[in-house]
Amino acid sequence: MNKLINSFSCPIPAFDFEVISLGHGSGGLLTNKLLDKSIFSLFDNDMLNSRHDGAVFDLAGPLAFSTDSFVVSPIFFPGGNIGDLAVNGTVNDLAMCGAVPKYLSLGLILEEGLKIEELWTVLVSAKEAANKAGVQIVTGDTKVVERNKGDKVFINTSGIGQVHPKARIDIQRVSTGDKIVVSGSLANHGVSVLSVREGLEFETDIISDTQPINNIVYRMLNTFGQHIHLTRDPTRGGIATVLNEIAQQSGQGIALNEKDIPIELQVQSACELLGLDPLYVANEGVYISFVAAEIADSYVEALRQCPGAKKAACIGEVVTEHPGQVIINSRIGGRRVIAMLPGEQLPRIC
Amino acid sequence: MNKLINSFSCPIPAFDFEVISLGHGSGGLLTNKLLDKSIFSLFDNDMLNSRHDGAVFDLAGPLAFSTDSFVVSPIFFPGGNIGDLAVNGTVNDLAMCGAVPKYLSLGLILEEGLKIEELWTVLVSAKEAANKAGVQIVTGDTKVVERNKGDKVFINTSGIGQVHPKARIDIQRVSTGDKIVVSGSLANHGVSVLSVREGLEFETDIISDTQPINNIVYRMLNTFGQHIHLTRDPTRGGIATVLNEIAQQSGQGIALNEKDIPIELQVQSACELLGLDPLYVANEGVYISFVAAEIADSYVEALRQCPGAKKAACIGEVVTEHPGQVIINSRIGGRRVIAMLPGEQLPRIC
Repeated sequence: MNKLINSFSCPIPAFDFEVISLGHGSGGLLTNKLLDKSIFSLFDNDMLNSRHDGAVFDLAGPLAFSTDSFVVSPIFFPGGNIGDLAVNGTVNDLAMCGAVPKYLSLGLILEEGLKIEELWTVLVSAKEAANKAGVQIVTGDTKVVERNKGDKVFINTSGIGQVHPKARIDIQRVSTGDKIVVSGSLANHGVSVLSVREGLEFETDIISDTQPINNIVYRMLNTFGQHIHLTRDPTRGGIATVLNEIAQQSGQGIALNEKDIPIELQVQSACELLGLDPLYVANEGVYISFVAAEIADSYVEALRQCPGAKKAACIGEVVTEHPGQVIINSRIGGRRVIAMLPGEQLPRIC
Repeated sequence: MNKLINSFSCPIPAFDFEVISLGHGSGGLLTNKLLDKSIFSLFDNDMLNSRHDGAVFDLAGPLAFSTDSFVVSPIFFPGGNIGDLAVNGTVNDLAMCGAVPKYLSLGLILEEGLKIEELWTVLVSAKEAANKAGVQIVTGDTKVVERNKGDKVFINTSGIGQVHPKARIDIQRVSTGDKIVVSGSLANHGVSVLSVREGLEFETDIISDTQPINNIVYRMLNTFGQHIHLTRDPTRGGIATVLNEIAQQSGQGIALNEKDIPIELQVQSACELLGLDPLYVANEGVYISFVAAEIADSYVEALRQCPGAKKAACIGEVVTEHPGQVIINSRIGGRRVIAMLPGEQLPRIC
């Protein structure tokens, strides 16, 4: 764990306490001290510094608005922690709406007894992620709950972005012949979290794919505009769940080719070891696009030029057969239905 | 408790489970079933129904953006529950920025084992509060954590509003001679929650003041516009905390007159019994205004015409003495400093 914590780069200021207490959530002097040295010093910007009940800014529509709560356990995992995960998660959700993310909120629910060092690391990661994505954290809230009424830290991020003028992302535009493109290798996030949670020390170094993908999506929208019919990020539940939702909502059939789905060999091996199907495992830095067939090859090529999408691949297409269902053509020539999982595969993966 | 739960009006649909399980947070079939019957059926609107990663809408700036996480314990209390509290909280924060609240997000963190009946009641209250405030819940997220890693339900609401064209709310506009007006009686929320939490059955019926105040603020902005210099809602930490923050941030002195501060007799008595100072107790349906002296009387008069602000009163003013401090002139002629509380008075009050 310490190896994971020590990856942060911003030195921790001198707090006169080592752990979070209920008083830090009271709204009084302790809360103000905590926020001054952490939130306000790290995320320093005019809107946040106004210390009002909200942030005020000018932004022309159409706008996208998204929210996500993060309860990942453990809060530190190979490749990231709940801080950058929370920022990247909402940044990516906005990008999936075809929007350029601008402003984020940060809502913290801290458990009494949380080490201030851990909180600091999480916040520094959130700040670094915000910088990388080009967004500002402009408003926030901090609550504290008693021991065993929370779990270290839960984070809600909500965000606002401006829809890209060329974006026409709409599930109704998904139609027969559309190619389905994934921007990177699958299942890294879920496997990385599980490896720490279960105390499994793999020989390999599987790290979470958590990253902001808004800059990639922006480049694609600039180039391919309305030929991109739909984008979604396959987080909780993996691509199997997201593709099932899309098949059901659009009434279209989806056919995947197993051999084209990019999964790192070590991730595949870890999944086999753990009894997981990688198609159901969460991702936090890749996205799925439904694009017009005629641009699919150039789209994949363009994606592969982007840092963070080098493994992009076309993994299937929209078909007239089996409307509402997802079918996979397996490596060995068979076909099987990929259904939505009835219960949980991996709880608290994000 | 049942008395509190049974106040809801919308019949519970037939769920095929009685409690929340980890699978409801998996993103799979169980999650979809839960959300279909609860979130999507209750909050039904085009933006939410798109079931995308966020909501897309057109809204002209300047905009206000606010977030708040609610961890109140217990989740049901006289006069409300965590559902309407969460909606009213963010609606009111937006109103305090001089904005007309439009769209809200709803992020749920549920504890495994939560009764579906309780969740339903909370969601119905949230929906009713949204209707009352004239806002729509357009995007959301639901997570589930294991038993003893949460506490029934935590709710984050974030919201977006359009700043009223006449609003010029800014702490820098607080200046000597400004009158300080409170829109209603103080401390009801905190005392109502505490009465349930501690199992104290008061003879009296003190109920939370939780209510949306955006419609009141809108009327005031229409009439008094830029003569309203600052508005803030005295939630966690009560008016003592908020006024101290304002005094410190503005560098102004604040003088209150104890005799003018509206507190219901039974609330005052309950506070004495519990050893609480009502000035530090949370409110969820009143707000403080700093207004130009020349309009103060008409402002109070206009407030008193509004349902939900009948007890409005001018409680003090901004003075040149003791900059950065809040002083109260007591009933018996003395003067004392009202400082920010060092630790917690009432944890998990909102």
